[in-house]
Amino acid sequence: MQVRIVGSKEKGMRQFVIIGHEVPTEPEFSLSDLAGGAGRLDVLCRCVTSAFFLSHAIRTDVRCRLVLNDAYTLRFEGSELRRLNPDERSTAALIRNALDSQEKAIGAMEVETSPGVYLSRNGVEETLRNVNIEGIVIQLHEDGTPIGEIDPPSDPVFVLSDHLDFTQRESDLLDEIGSLRLTIGPDVLHADHAIVVTHNLLSRH
Amino acid sequence: MQVRIVGSKEKGMRQFVIIGHEVPTEPEFSLSDLAGGAGRLDVLCRCVTSAFFLSHAIRTDVRCRLVLNDAYTLRFEGSELRRLNPDERSTAALIRNALDSQEKAIGAMEVETSPGVYLSRNGVEETLRNVNIEGIVIQLHEDGTPIGEIDPPSDPVFVLSDHLDFTQRESDLLDEIGSLRLTIGPDVLHADHAIVVTHNLLSRH
Repeated sequence: MQVRIVGSKEKGMRQFVIIGHEVPTEPEFSLSDLAGGAGRLDVLCRCVTSAFFLSHAIRTDVRCRLVLNDAYTLRFEGSELRRLNPDERSTAALIRNALDSQEKAIGAMEVETSPGVYLSRNGVEETLRNVNIEGIVIQLHEDGTPIGEIDPPSDPVFVLSDHLDFTQRESDLLDEIGSLRLTIGPDVLHADHAIVVTHNLLSRH
Repeated sequence: MQVRIVGSKEKGMRQFVIIGHEVPTEPEFSLSDLAGGAGRLDVLCRCVTSAFFLSHAIRTDVRCRLVLNDAYTLRFEGSELRRLNPDERSTAALIRNALDSQEKAIGAMEVETSPGVYLSRNGVEETLRNVNIEGIVIQLHEDGTPIGEIDPPSDPVFVLSDHLDFTQRESDLLDEIGSLRLTIGPDVLHADHAIVVTHNLLSRH
């Protein structure tokens, strides 16, 4: 079991946290029914692809966390990733493989389940409090300030919800930690597409 | 068999053409190996999702064509689409279903294979000449003029390649029909991500 302590402020790092609400927390799901039986795990898989993939490279300055049903958090580390492919099915296989190791994740201790992929039993609150130490937390939300109107921080942590809205508790937590609320509008997009646009806006800034 | 003649200039329509080079042209491919045996059909499926999906709606002002190995063209019509879901596998199933009807597509005559999805035997050249009538053809290319430096036309047709570069013949054809060459830079992106960024740039303009 490998445990890794992530550092405090991470300048130059782009972080994304995607909160999944109906996804599996057991590895017994079918890779052939990601959008159905696996509770829209397809959305989270595409979010990982959007966070990391350039045309012929992986973005090494990106960290992405998936929160699975307030029960587990998967952390993907761009500088360490291997075996990540852009298609949904192979990313879902990485997630299923990680859930296979859930017995090895004890409390907040992470276990590395494949190169650059770490599983912990952190839920939404623990993960939001962790990333609030690592950077400036930003909700991507249709009702936010247009992202072009601010100077983006050098250590942004963008928090998105899957196909469902943030729950009241998640919204309250995001308010409590003092997150910014920005919009990439005017179109209201799927989380994975919002990540793509966010990368473009940051890179063009 | 339904034949449809697409109109000439289509103001207010955003069009995308994605040229696939190694994808199946027979319906006997596995939906469980899109990124391998199906020649990176996963990329084209994500392109369709990027072209059409808003968070809770389909963009009705979009037309998207997939050119399959210079042998077939699939046209997706936003205003008519049903049964389109955002995950790769279900889009691949629509494509497989369309290829099942290939015997009904004769010459340049299209056949509607599911609501809003049309198959023809048009290859790259026929399709590029068709879209050149319908709008202003724009190559999305890393070496182009930054898209922010021009006023985008009201009837743009963005042409992209899959995971491979345009072939010399495709580049020559694009030059011959007088296409613009624009970049959404600075990052070089997968085709599906480039479509997402293009939508955002047009919507924010």
